[in-house]
Amino acid sequence: MDYTAAFEAAIDAVRKEGRYRVFANMKRHRGDFPRATWLREDGSEQEVTVWCSNDYLGQGQNPVVLDAMHTAIDEAGSGSGGTRNISGTTWYHNELEAELADLHGKEAALVFSSGYVANEATLTTLYKVLPGLIIFSDALNHASMIAGIRNGGGERHIFRHNDLAHLEELLAAAPVNAPKLIAFESVYSMDGDIADIAGTIALAKKYNALTYIDEVHAVGLYGQRGAGVAERDGVMDQIDIIEGTLGKAFGMMGGYIAGKAAMCDAIRLWASGFIFTTSLPPAVMAGATASVRYLKEHNERRVAHQERAQTLMRRFREAGIPVFPSESHIVPVLVGNPVHCKMISDMLLKDFNIYVQPINYPTVPKGTERLRFTPSPDHTDEMMDELVTAMDKLWSHCNVARMPAVA
Amino acid sequence: MDYTAAFEAAIDAVRKEGRYRVFANMKRHRGDFPRATWLREDGSEQEVTVWCSNDYLGQGQNPVVLDAMHTAIDEAGSGSGGTRNISGTTWYHNELEAELADLHGKEAALVFSSGYVANEATLTTLYKVLPGLIIFSDALNHASMIAGIRNGGGERHIFRHNDLAHLEELLAAAPVNAPKLIAFESVYSMDGDIADIAGTIALAKKYNALTYIDEVHAVGLYGQRGAGVAERDGVMDQIDIIEGTLGKAFGMMGGYIAGKAAMCDAIRLWASGFIFTTSLPPAVMAGATASVRYLKEHNERRVAHQERAQTLMRRFREAGIPVFPSESHIVPVLVGNPVHCKMISDMLLKDFNIYVQPINYPTVPKGTERLRFTPSPDHTDEMMDELVTAMDKLWSHCNVARMPAVA
Ligand SMILES: Cc1ncc(COP(=O)(O)O)c(C=O)c1O
Ligand SMILES: Cc1ncc(COP(=O)(O)O)c(C=O)c1O
Repeated sequence: MDYTAAFEAAIDAVRKEGRYRVFANMKRHRGDFPRATWLREDGSEQEVTVWCSNDYLGQGQNPVVLDAMHTAIDEAGSGSGGTRNISGTTWYHNELEAELADLHGKEAALVFSSGYVANEATLTTLYKVLPGLIIFSDALNHASMIAGIRNGGGERHIFRHNDLAHLEELLAAAPVNAPKLIAFESVYSMDGDIADIAGTIALAKKYNALTYIDEVHAVGLYGQRGAGVAERDGVMDQIDIIEGTLGKAFGMMGGYIAGKAAMCDAIRLWASGFIFTTSLPPAVMAGATASVRYLKEHNERRVAHQERAQTLMRRFREAGIPVFPSESHIVPVLVGNPVHCKMISDMLLKDFNIYVQPINYPTVPKGTERLRFTPSPDHTDEMMDELVTAMDKLWSHCNVARMPAVA
Repeated sequence: MDYTAAFEAAIDAVRKEGRYRVFANMKRHRGDFPRATWLREDGSEQEVTVWCSNDYLGQGQNPVVLDAMHTAIDEAGSGSGGTRNISGTTWYHNELEAELADLHGKEAALVFSSGYVANEATLTTLYKVLPGLIIFSDALNHASMIAGIRNGGGERHIFRHNDLAHLEELLAAAPVNAPKLIAFESVYSMDGDIADIAGTIALAKKYNALTYIDEVHAVGLYGQRGAGVAERDGVMDQIDIIEGTLGKAFGMMGGYIAGKAAMCDAIRLWASGFIFTTSLPPAVMAGATASVRYLKEHNERRVAHQERAQTLMRRFREAGIPVFPSESHIVPVLVGNPVHCKMISDMLLKDFNIYVQPINYPTVPKGTERLRFTPSPDHTDEMMDELVTAMDKLWSHCNVARMPAVA
C-alpha cells in the first residue's frame, strides 16, 4: 500500500474532470468593499472587484460591527478558552442568543461553530431525541443538511426539489403516528429560487410534521427586520426550527437554530457537535450581535440590495447572457462545463480585474457549472458596466451559449 | 405526536441522572486572567478565579495576539465573506497554514472551522480517498474522532486505551494489504495521561499503517517550539497526520491538520465539512498566526506552565485530595458522582469565588465524574492557597473520598 500514491490518485480523479480547485488568494479592503487585492502565485498583486462574496450587504466593513469586535477584544481577549459547558459561555454568547431568538420571534436560540455545524449537529440529534423520526428532505438541500440526516442514521425520504405534491405523497405514505420533520431551505443559494414556505407549512400541519428551514441565504436579507423569507411571507411563527448563519449577510462567522425553548435545550444537552468543541470567540459574538441589531433597523440596505440584483439580472438578460430565472438576490449564469467555466473565470480575473469563482461539482450538479454573481449595495453602476461589457466580450470570444439555452 | 413533550422528555432523562448542564455565564478580563466576572441568574455579579479554562497559557490576553486581531479587522473587516473556494481564502488563511506546516515540520497544513470539524471531516474523508481503509481507534478517543470514524461508515476496530499489545493483536488480524490508520491522542484531556507515541509509530511501521494523532491538548504546550508531545519525544517527522486546535493553548478558535502535501490536498478537495462552510474570519487567522509564532519562541511559558501544574498536583496530594495520576498539565480530581460533583462545584463558586466546572457524562464515563483543574502560568501561589484550602474544607464537609480511593 503506497499511501502517497493513493492520495495523488484521489487528486487526479478531480483534476481529470477539470474541477481541480485553485483557491484565489484575496484580501478585501475594509472601507473599500467590494474592492480587493488579488495576490498571484508569482507574488505580484492586482486590484480587483469581488463579485462572488456572500457578505451580501457589506456588513463585514460596517463600523458598527468592527467597533463591537474591537471593544470585545479589549474587554475579554481573543478566544473564549473553553467549550460552552466548560468556561466558554460568556455574556457575549448569551446576548447573541437572546438577540437571535428575538429576531425570529422564538423562545430561544442556540449558536454553533458554523451554519454547517448547526445543520449537521441539529438534524443528527433530532433522530436521537425523537426516536423513530422520519425526515423528509428537499432534493437540493445543502450538503450540511444531507450530512446531518445521513449521519443521524434514521429513516429519510427525499422529495423532488420544491415539489409539494411529491412531498405530500411521501408524507401520506408514512405511518400516521411517527414523528416527522420536513427539512428545506428558503433561498436555494446556487439557483436563487425560493421555496413555497406557506405551502410546506400547510402540509406539515396536515400530517403533524415539524418544519425545519435553512434560511442561511436569507437571514439579514428578507423581511422587515431581516429575519428571512419566512418573516417576509408572514409565516415565521409557524415554522418550528429556523436555522441561519452569521457568516453571510451578517458578515461574521457562526451558525444557529431558533425555536421553542424545550427544542433548543434538548439539542444543547444532546448534540455532540455542539458540546465537544470550543465556543466562538467573544469578539465574533459581539460583532454578530451588533450586525443583527443593525440590520433589524436598516431595511434600506435590503431595498438597495434587491435593486442591485434586479438591475444586474436585467442587464445580463439584455446582453443575452444566460442568467438563471432567479427569484432572489443571487444571479447565476449558466456555462455548463467545468473547463469553460474555469477558463471564463480566469479571463475575467486576469484580463478584466473581475473576481467571480467558477462553481462546479460537488457544489452544483455536473453539467450545470456556472458563474454565480452576488451584487451588493456597494456595487456601483460603473462596476456593472465593466462586468457586463466583459461578460459580453467573453461570451462572444469563447462561443458560449447565449440566453435561450437556459430557459 | 406531541413534539414539545418529546423534547421535554429528552431533557428530563438528563435531569434525572443529575447531569443537567447549567452554563456559567462568565466574562474574563483581558489583562487580568485568570480573573473573571460571574453573572448570576438574578443579575448580580461576583468576581471569581477561573480554574478550568483551556486557554492554558493565557494567550487569550497576550497583546501580540490581540494586536494582530485589531490590525486584521482594520485592514480586512470582520468575516471572510465566503467558503474557502468562493472568495473566502485570504492572505491570512494562507499565512496561518504555512506557519502551521512549519511548526510541525510538514509539507502542508489545512485549517478547519474547529478542531472538532478537523477530526470529523478528515477521518470521514479518509475512508473515501483510501477505499477499504480500516481505522484502529483508541477507546478513549475524543467525540469528534468517534464521529468522523462512525460517519465514514468503513471498517473500524477499537483498541483498549493506550494498550499497544491489544492494538498489535488487531493490526495483525487485519488483511496485510488493506490500507490502515491508527487514530489516537497524545494528551488525553480528561485523565491527563499521555500516549506512547514512539511505540505506536513502531507498530504502524511494522503493519504499514498511517498514524493520525490528535495533539489538541498538547500543541503550544510541549516540545521546544510548542508543536506537541510528538515534538518533545523527537518523533514528529514519523507521524503522518497531526491534528490540532487553535482554540486552546493558542487562545483563539479553529482547527487543523498537518502532513504531506498530497494528503492535505486530497482532504481539501474531498471533505464536505471543509468545502461547504464559510471560512474563518481574517482576524481569527491573524490572531492564531501571531500566537503560534509567539509560542515557538517562548519556551519559558511552557516551563512555567508545567511548574504550576506539578505544584498544584503536589499540593492536592499533600491535602489528601484524590488527584488522578496525570502525566501532563491537566489536574483532574475524582468525585465519582454527578450530583456531588455539581454540588462541590457550586459551593466552590458561590462560597469561595473559585470557578471549576463539574465534568460529567457524556464528557467522561458515568461514575468517574470529576473536577478538572487547569492551572496556567498566571495562577499565583495565593490563588493556589485559596483553592487548596477551599477543597480541603469541602472534602471534609461533603465527606468525599480522599486520596487512596483513586490509586
Ligand atoms: C444553504 C446553506 N446552508 C448552510 C451553509 C453553511 O453555513 P456556514 O457557512 O455558516 O457554515 C451554507 C453555506 O456555507 C449554505 O449555503
Ligand atoms: C481531544 C480533543 N480533540 C478535539 C477537540 C475539538 O477541538 P475544538 O475545540 O477546536 O473543536 C477537543 C475539545 O474541544 C478535544 O478535547
